[in-house]
Amino acid sequence: MIQAKGYAAQDAQTDLAPWDFDRREVGPHDVQFDILYCGVCHSDLHQIKNDWFEGIFPMVPGHEIVGRVVKVGDHVKKFKVGDLAATGCMVDSCQVCENCKQGLEQYCLEGNTQTYNSMERDGSRPTYGGYSNTIVVREEFVLHISDKLDLAATAPLLCAGITTYSPLKHWKVGTGHKLAVLGLGGLGHMAVKFGVAFGADVTVLSTSPNKEEDARKLGAHHFVVTKDPEQVKAAKGTFDFILDTVSAPHDFNMYLSLLKTNGTMICVGVPPEPAQVAAFSLLDGRKSLAGSGIGGIPETQEMLDFCAEHNIVSDIELIDIKDITNAYERMLKGDVRYRFVIDMATL
Amino acid sequence: MIQAKGYAAQDAQTDLAPWDFDRREVGPHDVQFDILYCGVCHSDLHQIKNDWFEGIFPMVPGHEIVGRVVKVGDHVKKFKVGDLAATGCMVDSCQVCENCKQGLEQYCLEGNTQTYNSMERDGSRPTYGGYSNTIVVREEFVLHISDKLDLAATAPLLCAGITTYSPLKHWKVGTGHKLAVLGLGGLGHMAVKFGVAFGADVTVLSTSPNKEEDARKLGAHHFVVTKDPEQVKAAKGTFDFILDTVSAPHDFNMYLSLLKTNGTMICVGVPPEPAQVAAFSLLDGRKSLAGSGIGGIPETQEMLDFCAEHNIVSDIELIDIKDITNAYERMLKGDVRYRFVIDMATL
Repeated sequence: MIQAKGYAAQDAQTDLAPWDFDRREVGPHDVQFDILYCGVCHSDLHQIKNDWFEGIFPMVPGHEIVGRVVKVGDHVKKFKVGDLAATGCMVDSCQVCENCKQGLEQYCLEGNTQTYNSMERDGSRPTYGGYSNTIVVREEFVLHISDKLDLAATAPLLCAGITTYSPLKHWKVGTGHKLAVLGLGGLGHMAVKFGVAFGADVTVLSTSPNKEEDARKLGAHHFVVTKDPEQVKAAKGTFDFILDTVSAPHDFNMYLSLLKTNGTMICVGVPPEPAQVAAFSLLDGRKSLAGSGIGGIPETQEMLDFCAEHNIVSDIELIDIKDITNAYERMLKGDVRYRFVIDMATL
Repeated sequence: MIQAKGYAAQDAQTDLAPWDFDRREVGPHDVQFDILYCGVCHSDLHQIKNDWFEGIFPMVPGHEIVGRVVKVGDHVKKFKVGDLAATGCMVDSCQVCENCKQGLEQYCLEGNTQTYNSMERDGSRPTYGGYSNTIVVREEFVLHISDKLDLAATAPLLCAGITTYSPLKHWKVGTGHKLAVLGLGGLGHMAVKFGVAFGADVTVLSTSPNKEEDARKLGAHHFVVTKDPEQVKAAKGTFDFILDTVSAPHDFNMYLSLLKTNGTMICVGVPPEPAQVAAFSLLDGRKSLAGSGIGGIPETQEMLDFCAEHNIVSDIELIDIKDITNAYERMLKGDVRYRFVIDMATL
């Protein structure tokens, strides 16, 4: 076994703390890479707190992982020692179902294997995430990243990036479309960057007027304060798409009213309570409320290549791993612009 | 003015009863036709009872109207005295907005004028529906119907027909698709007929096992009793589309789980309470929950022509107008196969 160290939650009540654990040996199809940076996703906190479901403890979170390859299995073709490498939210899937064959491993019909808080496909052991010094992942789930980009700022592309890139591509959002991005956090700020890069006319919808300056710096063309009834009224019926990145409870019917006829609101956040959707909010204007989950492996590679070409990374704040609990507290208050990334050298 | 007679509700508490009223004179762009048959829609009952909003009383319901032209205005080009004619849920719209110009008058950005329980566009008087002997409608909102079809059974096409035809066409449902029709009532039985005519593999989802024989007679290929957990389990992840015609409260998350990856559930019914939609029900499999309202005038004509060509009408039970209150009671119990139509000769 490979001796690894990281930060783990021992149960849903305790804070993250240093923990030594084993990773599997590098198999013939595996890539081992030492982790240089790992992004901090809101879902890390949801999972260590059992917000969504009963987790597997001890839990080492982290699924925005970048590093450098230190060992490859005999059959590995795409990576060699010394290469940059990255892994996102998944480390495995069945590889044979209809969805996996289409590169939609996130929708694997047998269920994919999450990077942490999941069981290896052979059921032998839990998966452990990126708040650690090294990781072993089967080749198919390891991504190439460009050395042209700031490496730390690349980490959040693996979740916040692909989660917003994928729906914008799937719904073909681009030139001629009015796109609203709801919420300007880790996901939202990436959605603005991609929306602008794809040629859409981008509006940020936010409850916080003080985010306008930042929104415009990120490239947004317009800003609507959703607490101001006059601004909301003026925005009614104006958007082709709303990308909803908000995980807190919010009024779906109000946002649906901002869509044009045939408009689509795409949810990528997971609020704690079900959305309350009035039938007339959808019937009147033939509107759609859709969801999208991360992205498949081929599309994640496409997104990383697109980012390298267009010089797109996340806006980050680099932290020491010992400050992770404080970072979670700040994240809960929305006090981060726009993603914490752990410098794994501090482990 | 034109003296008309019909059945009206004087307020939300009283049953329909005979009532004499005026219709506007036939203007240069108007068609007057004597009403031969009028379908009975669940929304007639919702509106006379103020279920959705405060209505305009006295109210003459009815928006599935067929008859024969008795007078046309000087500028009318498409109709002459003696022609068959029909009108559905709308009798006017702004005609100049982006949606009206595209033939989507149902989504008129200024609001369309409903056939009853609405005000004429000049604000002069309420509109009165098809539970009456004659009607005056501007030419653009009068449809041609074929004399090849049973006239009484054609009436429900004007609402139940177009409401199910339009979304199936918009989402291009057809050969190679697995379509589930949720609910086998006035709308649902038309959805089955259209789904089959478009080449889809059609399943009826119903709480009532005793509807299976009827579903198959209507052309459905499969039937799933949604109260049977085993049948529901077997249906999970199998449908490309669900056309949801149910106006009673129901479990949207359960039905969304029956969709394939990228599947769409289209609502055409209006339940009294908002749908409760869990984020994971949409995110997991990139699913959409959409709505669709009736259909525009060009598409309604297309649907009527399609029905004439494919010999499609509604399955109806013809009633005397004096039995309307009893018919409502039976409709509430689901005791109608599948649409009541009033024989206006009984007025």
